[in-house]
Amino acid sequence: MKLGTLRTGLSTTAVRVDDDSVVEIAGFDDVGALLQEPEWSSIARDAEGPSRRTSDVAPKDWAPVVTRPSKIVCVGLNYANHIREMGRELPEFPTLFAKYPEALIGPFDDIVLPSYAAQALDWEAELALVIGAPARRLEEEEALSAIAGFTVINDVTMRDFQYRTPEWFQGKTFEDSTPLGPFLTLREDYRLGTELQSRVDGEVMQSATTDDLVFGPAALVSYISKIVTLNPGDVIATGTPGGVGHARKPPRYLTDGAVLTTSIEGLGILTNAVRVEA
Amino acid sequence: MKLGTLRTGLSTTAVRVDDDSVVEIAGFDDVGALLQEPEWSSIARDAEGPSRRTSDVAPKDWAPVVTRPSKIVCVGLNYANHIREMGRELPEFPTLFAKYPEALIGPFDDIVLPSYAAQALDWEAELALVIGAPARRLEEEEALSAIAGFTVINDVTMRDFQYRTPEWFQGKTFEDSTPLGPFLTLREDYRLGTELQSRVDGEVMQSATTDDLVFGPAALVSYISKIVTLNPGDVIATGTPGGVGHARKPPRYLTDGAVLTTSIEGLGILTNAVRVEA
Repeated sequence: MKLGTLRTGLSTTAVRVDDDSVVEIAGFDDVGALLQEPEWSSIARDAEGPSRRTSDVAPKDWAPVVTRPSKIVCVGLNYANHIREMGRELPEFPTLFAKYPEALIGPFDDIVLPSYAAQALDWEAELALVIGAPARRLEEEEALSAIAGFTVINDVTMRDFQYRTPEWFQGKTFEDSTPLGPFLTLREDYRLGTELQSRVDGEVMQSATTDDLVFGPAALVSYISKIVTLNPGDVIATGTPGGVGHARKPPRYLTDGAVLTTSIEGLGILTNAVRVEA
Repeated sequence: MKLGTLRTGLSTTAVRVDDDSVVEIAGFDDVGALLQEPEWSSIARDAEGPSRRTSDVAPKDWAPVVTRPSKIVCVGLNYANHIREMGRELPEFPTLFAKYPEALIGPFDDIVLPSYAAQALDWEAELALVIGAPARRLEEEEALSAIAGFTVINDVTMRDFQYRTPEWFQGKTFEDSTPLGPFLTLREDYRLGTELQSRVDGEVMQSATTDDLVFGPAALVSYISKIVTLNPGDVIATGTPGGVGHARKPPRYLTDGAVLTTSIEGLGILTNAVRVEA
């Protein structure tokens, strides 16, 4: 089963995404609100409409699959090949940082930035997981069942801001910079190991399989849950593989008009044009 | 004028804190909810009750002054003397990182931690500011008016977790570790330059004046607002001065039973006992 969040005039609604149609899950503004219900899975499965043909949904009607997660925890240095690219050793502990929900945009929205934020704009294609049950101090074997499912995120990064200070955070949480979606694919319907890619104007920049993670989904949920409770709808961005623009020689960055495509086989594709404000 | 948040059975309520009494501000669960109203200042001033004598309020009835800020942005390396203590140069840009609201506790609550989180537990007394109007891409001169007022925070830190990886975040956001309060003193009623202290079991550990900030309140609001919108109720912890336990020779940490006192003259005192779970 796949779930999504659609824009409907001034609000949004959670939907079940079937093969040819999207079916409204009445009473829930987004997938995050739905996941607050312990019975979210059966509520979603039993939802009966109204429905629309998927082909009738305009791309920009898709909202971030969770519109306002209480937490977005990002993981750095989690793909073996990216760690080597950055000249580091395989880590003993996951590197974590935060992103605020204001950063999120829909899967087909433009990345709209002021010019001061677009001087060293880089891509980071990532597998995201979404929490489906409260997670507090869970061991790894319990942690898996707290994961509702998986989706796609691009942790678009302002490298200049990231490296201005010892902490990456300010290059990671720019408003309207981080596409998330298009769907939440339930955990039991996705198996790690499919291809993750980012492309810029069609050119492949990153390519890896989602089973190259140093810390896998359950390990991350367990580790974070021993620090702070994860709530339904919270998002963990599991880290990016090699191929980022900043590590290229010479470096490559996203500029006005570039189209960034982020895909994970089996989970979907994000397509986001960069628009730099005059 | 001072504002606070009191626990009332299963919920909380915003209160105006007068000389001898606290007056409920009906309809608002906490100071954060009150600050969502553009007219929050006059609503607070005109509130008429019910009221209680301040002396009748039990210490543990005080909640974090904002119970669930949408953001807590922390600033590192912002007191000249602490920067020197850590062996660094004065920075060109503020170092920022995030803390989640689950970390917050009331001004007189115990800091309750599992033993794995209490191996290198340190204090960081800080001036906090609370946002009173949406702040997006503000210049410094406009930013001041977005500040509702000031309060006290202790950015209690797990140094071992902080330094496990390149990012400090995981040592900064432990559940139930960060006291905030006791009151919000409105901006026009507080002037930077009073004494900030932390004490452990009565012994002074940190002492500085709040005008030793490299980046002052308006500069911080302006800088952050160019990255991400600050919302009413959001908290900025402006950084800590020298005297932290980790920088002492030998290092000193908080252990079970220690009482941490954090005070800013004119803003109030936090008193928190450390309790390490068996």
